[in-house]
Amino acid sequence: METTRESRDLSLNVGAVRALLVGFIRDETRRAGFENVVLGLSGGIDSAVAAFLACEALGNGHVTGVIMPYRTSSPRSSEDAGVVARHLGLTALCVDITPMVDAYLGPAAVTDRVRAGNVMARQRMIVLYDLSSRDRALVLGTSNKTEILLGYGTLYGDTACALNPLGDLYKTQVVQLARAMGVPEQIIAKPPSADLWEGQTDEGELGFTYAEVDRLLYYMTDEGRSDEELAELGFSRRLMEDVKAMVRRNQFKRRPPLVAKVSHKTVEADIRNARDRGT
Amino acid sequence: METTRESRDLSLNVGAVRALLVGFIRDETRRAGFENVVLGLSGGIDSAVAAFLACEALGNGHVTGVIMPYRTSSPRSSEDAGVVARHLGLTALCVDITPMVDAYLGPAAVTDRVRAGNVMARQRMIVLYDLSSRDRALVLGTSNKTEILLGYGTLYGDTACALNPLGDLYKTQVVQLARAMGVPEQIIAKPPSADLWEGQTDEGELGFTYAEVDRLLYYMTDEGRSDEELAELGFSRRLMEDVKAMVRRNQFKRRPPLVAKVSHKTVEADIRNARDRGT
Repeated sequence: METTRESRDLSLNVGAVRALLVGFIRDETRRAGFENVVLGLSGGIDSAVAAFLACEALGNGHVTGVIMPYRTSSPRSSEDAGVVARHLGLTALCVDITPMVDAYLGPAAVTDRVRAGNVMARQRMIVLYDLSSRDRALVLGTSNKTEILLGYGTLYGDTACALNPLGDLYKTQVVQLARAMGVPEQIIAKPPSADLWEGQTDEGELGFTYAEVDRLLYYMTDEGRSDEELAELGFSRRLMEDVKAMVRRNQFKRRPPLVAKVSHKTVEADIRNARDRGT
Repeated sequence: METTRESRDLSLNVGAVRALLVGFIRDETRRAGFENVVLGLSGGIDSAVAAFLACEALGNGHVTGVIMPYRTSSPRSSEDAGVVARHLGLTALCVDITPMVDAYLGPAAVTDRVRAGNVMARQRMIVLYDLSSRDRALVLGTSNKTEILLGYGTLYGDTACALNPLGDLYKTQVVQLARAMGVPEQIIAKPPSADLWEGQTDEGELGFTYAEVDRLLYYMTDEGRSDEELAELGFSRRLMEDVKAMVRRNQFKRRPPLVAKVSHKTVEADIRNARDRGT
């Protein structure tokens, strides 16, 4: 019986959302004084959907997709990224981040795979931001709402961007949009992975499925349900505690740096800037 | 006559501010569940003052200073950073970023010095964040209010941090604090520079002095004076226009990524997280 409720809650009006997100990319790119965007193409579903939306918004001549493998990345990731690029006819670049990454990991003797994964994500940010400067293009982000709430991403790495069309869609909603937009099935069907080490999958690393956690996050966050209500809805105490701890532990990734307040006009807290005032 | 007014406005009660900032670093580090901080030591006055404050707040055994030269950096920068480290007795590390930087700049054929400078600043961020993970230390920022308002810094580079004790102090106020805290005179006396290319100085690149721009920013931002009042205070139209354009042009550096709003609970806009609620 919860299945009915669940699918109603998280199911998107894909036509309306697609139009909204295409308009968002078009309007905000131009408002910022740009005509082009650049994004990383990982071979995964999020960057594929972002690329589809960007091409619809700006035209494929205004979208650059950058494929950035590391030496341990799966060849399948670059292949799938290439499929997206060819399907859309956007400008595709390949930048191997291995020399940059290994120039740090080697001398610093980093063997921890989480630390190594963060270095990779941040090197990719450097490439995207440099190309954004070279080509006068905004960096388009691809983090979804599930990742943002869980903090399942690298601060100043894959979470760094100017515009993010997917940040208010749960992962399972991105999948709905992907199907509606005609993202190739091979990309939709494969298990989501950051591909930071061999065999890594998001769901394996997180310890729960996107189907479960999206429902839980929706009820917790969007509906503000109490623990008792969540338990009645069938969520285990264990899952609730794990997810809440993750949301809380990673909140620093969703906040700007904390600035010590000295004056009566601190930049973060008190100074609203031009965009806020609609100029 | 304006000199009197000026010095009254921007002059700090250095004793009170020092105590406030030491308390800020101590309290916020512990509140986040940490005992250590890590910061880049550039040899300049901002990172020196931040290091002095951090050692007073946490003890020098809990502060790591990282010296990160590039092959074109002035040897004077590393020497001055070493002077700060030895004076305070903190843990100092040196990480040469040349291999990481050149692994990108060479193949990408980057000759533009602004783009190159941004790559350097971001490689330094990667080093600091990796060490923060290795040592369970928060990254301490060193951007001052002048730099933040002007956007004179690299997004996801030197502006990236967990805590920033200096972000509400204008550059000329950081100098006052430096003198009061006993920062070595050789660091206070030299012209401020990001040292991204030979002969670079902040004031040469900006085209105005910190003494001028700090006064202007103070009247514009903290006091909200009109253009007419600013002109009466003696500021040239040219300076006012240049500074306003810079503040506006770089506002994106002071904002989180723009997320397309789809649901009634978007992460940035609507979801307050645990720290906000005081938990």
